[in-house]
Amino acid sequence: MTDYSSTHQALLDTVPLREGARIASERVHYDEGGTALDGFFVADAAIDGPRPAVLVLHDWTGEQEYTRVRAEMLARLGLLAFAADLYGAGVRPTGDDAATEAGKYYGDLPLLRRRVQAAYDVLASDPRVDPSRIVVIGYCFGGSASIEFARTGAALAGAVSFHGGLVTHEPADVESIRTPLLVLTGADDPVVPDDAVVAFEDELRQNPALDWQIVLYSGAPHAFTLPEAPSWRPVADARSWRAFRAFLDEVLA
Amino acid sequence: MTDYSSTHQALLDTVPLREGARIASERVHYDEGGTALDGFFVADAAIDGPRPAVLVLHDWTGEQEYTRVRAEMLARLGLLAFAADLYGAGVRPTGDDAATEAGKYYGDLPLLRRRVQAAYDVLASDPRVDPSRIVVIGYCFGGSASIEFARTGAALAGAVSFHGGLVTHEPADVESIRTPLLVLTGADDPVVPDDAVVAFEDELRQNPALDWQIVLYSGAPHAFTLPEAPSWRPVADARSWRAFRAFLDEVLA
Repeated sequence: MTDYSSTHQALLDTVPLREGARIASERVHYDEGGTALDGFFVADAAIDGPRPAVLVLHDWTGEQEYTRVRAEMLARLGLLAFAADLYGAGVRPTGDDAATEAGKYYGDLPLLRRRVQAAYDVLASDPRVDPSRIVVIGYCFGGSASIEFARTGAALAGAVSFHGGLVTHEPADVESIRTPLLVLTGADDPVVPDDAVVAFEDELRQNPALDWQIVLYSGAPHAFTLPEAPSWRPVADARSWRAFRAFLDEVLA
Repeated sequence: MTDYSSTHQALLDTVPLREGARIASERVHYDEGGTALDGFFVADAAIDGPRPAVLVLHDWTGEQEYTRVRAEMLARLGLLAFAADLYGAGVRPTGDDAATEAGKYYGDLPLLRRRVQAAYDVLASDPRVDPSRIVVIGYCFGGSASIEFARTGAALAGAVSFHGGLVTHEPADVESIRTPLLVLTGADDPVVPDDAVVAFEDELRQNPALDWQIVLYSGAPHAFTLPEAPSWRPVADARSWRAFRAFLDEVLA
């Protein structure tokens, strides 16, 4: 359907295309507070009626092919997937600019939350979506954004972080979280050292009713699920995808 | 086949019995250094030829119905399972005696290793077993024993700890481990506080080639997989079993 790089096509093909599937994508132009945003919807058009959905949040380079491929993998599973744009149309930074851009949002959490909310609203209002069964996932910066959005008290079916930073910005907000969390992190991720994991656990424990899981993968650095990056660790990538699939099965049942 | 308590029967029935399966168990009397040991073998007799196997190590109460049920669950999956006896025939302590008995082995790691080795040897020499595909698992004390046995350099397909203590007895031995490890632990387990998890991770990192995963489950105390105990947490139990199944699929593939 879409021309992906061979690396991304190989990633996509780890999820078999089902017999009779008709994967269709569309660009969705939306906005938040006057900022034009440009996301990517993908679904199996052969499926009728409301279905569960996944909101996919990008890393600090913005909404690029990688998150679209992850979204399409989810569409192959029968879910409706929306790769959000948190940064704004055309804002797809590289190198140091990516860190700078992400920093704007880490430094303005209300803005980050509004940007995720805007994408969530687009997804939840789609007639093909069962709004009671939406999971948000994210990679790196997007993993942090996923957890940050859970802190708003959003009525999600689940929130997942793949190698997201776990820095606690507003500890009090943990009381607001009412969705199961799945945190998949590399045991050799300098962005998420042991201290940060423990501090995050301590934060989560402030909300005894909260359902969470943390999985640590040996030898996995930051960004271990990105097949185009030197940080890619195929075993940890496959394991984390499988853990995520198990989580989906459970929270979307 | 065996009369289990209703709680254990319900646990067993979480694994469907396959069409045509003939689950058969037998008591195995063996010994280590002159101590009589009394384990429990269980397999699907409808399966021919060598197959993967799992060695199941008991908690500090010794080889009792719980580990036999876990073994039978594994037999239903087509594996040959052996519930080891680490303590000696008839040594099935309760209450404080269980802690005392386990303490003998924590205080004499060579003895603990020999006891696991003896059970492993029984299993590996069984003609129905593919000795290149043996996984060792354990619960509580048995989880610690599973990792301790991995430290001997045993050629296992994998070693798994369900809420086992992670105290590092002989850090140097981590260099000897050559099997993937899966550690499933409760985030509210006072036996395995955050400090112990971090210390264990630091130990494992001394062997950069080592493949390991640690999974933390919120709200799960010690012994969260024991359905007969107040510590039972059905969600964490089911999740840890599923994580273990995924691990088996991978290491026995």
